[in-house]
Amino acid sequence: MISVLSGGVGAARLLAALRRYDEKLELEAIVNVGDDLTLHGLTICPDLDTITYTLAGLHNVDAGWGLAGESWRVMDELAALGGAAWFRLGDRDLATHLYRSQRLAEGATKTDVARELAAHFALGVRVLPATNDVVATMLDTEVGPLSFQEYFVAHHHDVRVTRVRVEAHDARATPEVLASLARARRIIVAPSNPVLSIDPILAVSPLREVLRERRDEVIAVSPLVGGRALKGPADRLLRDLGHRPDSLGVAQLYRDVVGTLVIDEVDAALADDVRELGLRCVVTTTVMADPHDAQRLCEALLA
Amino acid sequence: MISVLSGGVGAARLLAALRRYDEKLELEAIVNVGDDLTLHGLTICPDLDTITYTLAGLHNVDAGWGLAGESWRVMDELAALGGAAWFRLGDRDLATHLYRSQRLAEGATKTDVARELAAHFALGVRVLPATNDVVATMLDTEVGPLSFQEYFVAHHHDVRVTRVRVEAHDARATPEVLASLARARRIIVAPSNPVLSIDPILAVSPLREVLRERRDEVIAVSPLVGGRALKGPADRLLRDLGHRPDSLGVAQLYRDVVGTLVIDEVDAALADDVRELGLRCVVTTTVMADPHDAQRLCEALLA
Repeated sequence: MISVLSGGVGAARLLAALRRYDEKLELEAIVNVGDDLTLHGLTICPDLDTITYTLAGLHNVDAGWGLAGESWRVMDELAALGGAAWFRLGDRDLATHLYRSQRLAEGATKTDVARELAAHFALGVRVLPATNDVVATMLDTEVGPLSFQEYFVAHHHDVRVTRVRVEAHDARATPEVLASLARARRIIVAPSNPVLSIDPILAVSPLREVLRERRDEVIAVSPLVGGRALKGPADRLLRDLGHRPDSLGVAQLYRDVVGTLVIDEVDAALADDVRELGLRCVVTTTVMADPHDAQRLCEALLA
Repeated sequence: MISVLSGGVGAARLLAALRRYDEKLELEAIVNVGDDLTLHGLTICPDLDTITYTLAGLHNVDAGWGLAGESWRVMDELAALGGAAWFRLGDRDLATHLYRSQRLAEGATKTDVARELAAHFALGVRVLPATNDVVATMLDTEVGPLSFQEYFVAHHHDVRVTRVRVEAHDARATPEVLASLARARRIIVAPSNPVLSIDPILAVSPLREVLRERRDEVIAVSPLVGGRALKGPADRLLRDLGHRPDSLGVAQLYRDVVGTLVIDEVDAALADDVRELGLRCVVTTTVMADPHDAQRLCEALLA
């Protein structure tokens, strides 16, 4: 059994590749909830939904986000009413948020809802929110403090960030997550944003300690290739925060919780520096541009 | 200025007729919120929305409820997910509920939201929720206690009712409602369900007392014609509760707060009995089957 610490798109693609690589592999995704938001009375869990939709094959491949065959009637009408339409919620996507919000009102947990959706879509992967408690990733920026989605969507992650504050307070990992990490023969950290996606998982008590103890079995995929993020603001954000915006910077951030870092071939020159930090380093293709590349990455992760 | 105590469909039709009858008439609707519900995290106010949509000319005339040109993408997807789809919310309608729910989360009141929607749709009528506090109309029935919408929608109001309980607790009328009733030269009680629509307005403190004091200026339209409700369960409900299911039964229910009852011509034989209860009684057409009938009713109400 493999546990995968997961943000959104990058993690979803890796999970889909791993499932394709070995259908018998027991896969459990431990998913960031620091991006979750409440809007229009609805509880919205973007990373959980991205993973669910991607594994269900419902994601919009062309757009890189959202659902295929999506329609926008509600959002168009809401915009006409003068409502808050900056966070675009498609009609099909809204059904998920209505479903989750009603189940939470009935006393279900995010874990229950994720299990129900995974069963409905026959994902073949267990999807586990890191916690049922509230975690909020907040950013201090040049335009003031922003919630994750204000930063990411409303400001198109195009503002200078001076600090990231993960407000996890008393958030505790669920029993399902603790059992997953205890049982996993390997723990993969997906190629997600180390600061905005993975750190909000580690901020949930006691996950950082659990990973430290299992460090030898933890293998992370660097989300940076040639000093650039494939998607999202990881490169600029690391730079803004004073980190190296490359796989060595990722190694520095992960060194206490990750035993092995997988970096892309274009960054092979950084491998020795990564090793000097006390991590093993595997050099392979990490981009998953085609099925063959994806297979090579999966082989490296499961070797 | 005229205040109109209002339920849903019947009140909306009367308000539209009054506005057509005299465009210069200053009209304020004081609207039942006892049917309001929270579902999928959304705050839904059916009577407020029925009035808003009808006055905006957006209502579905053929169906008798909901919006014209409505679509059902979200509800269809929600049903496919196994979600609670018994309360049908169209895509266009959902935009209103998202708008309201977000504004409430931002600290606005139902009164604020109703004003914003009325301005957006240029209704020409002030739409005032009776209260910003919670009122819940609950029904004890042969299948157990039900909320209003469970009774009305989920059970198609086709169960025997033994008691109606309006849970108004500390609900207080808004300043806007109190000002409206103080300023009105006439107070109309729309042809709405006396028990399910009007009583939940009167249960809001101190509206029953206000109407008692202004009883001479209060004129109600009986919603029963020939012992039948034009729409909804008023006839059966009155019978279940031990009242007469006709305009005389309505007079008995309203006698302490209504000075004049308007009854339909088919019920002319009841007029003397109504008068014996101490109400004035006006006999005219109440059905508004065509513009001429609607005009006659408006004349009677404003005479």
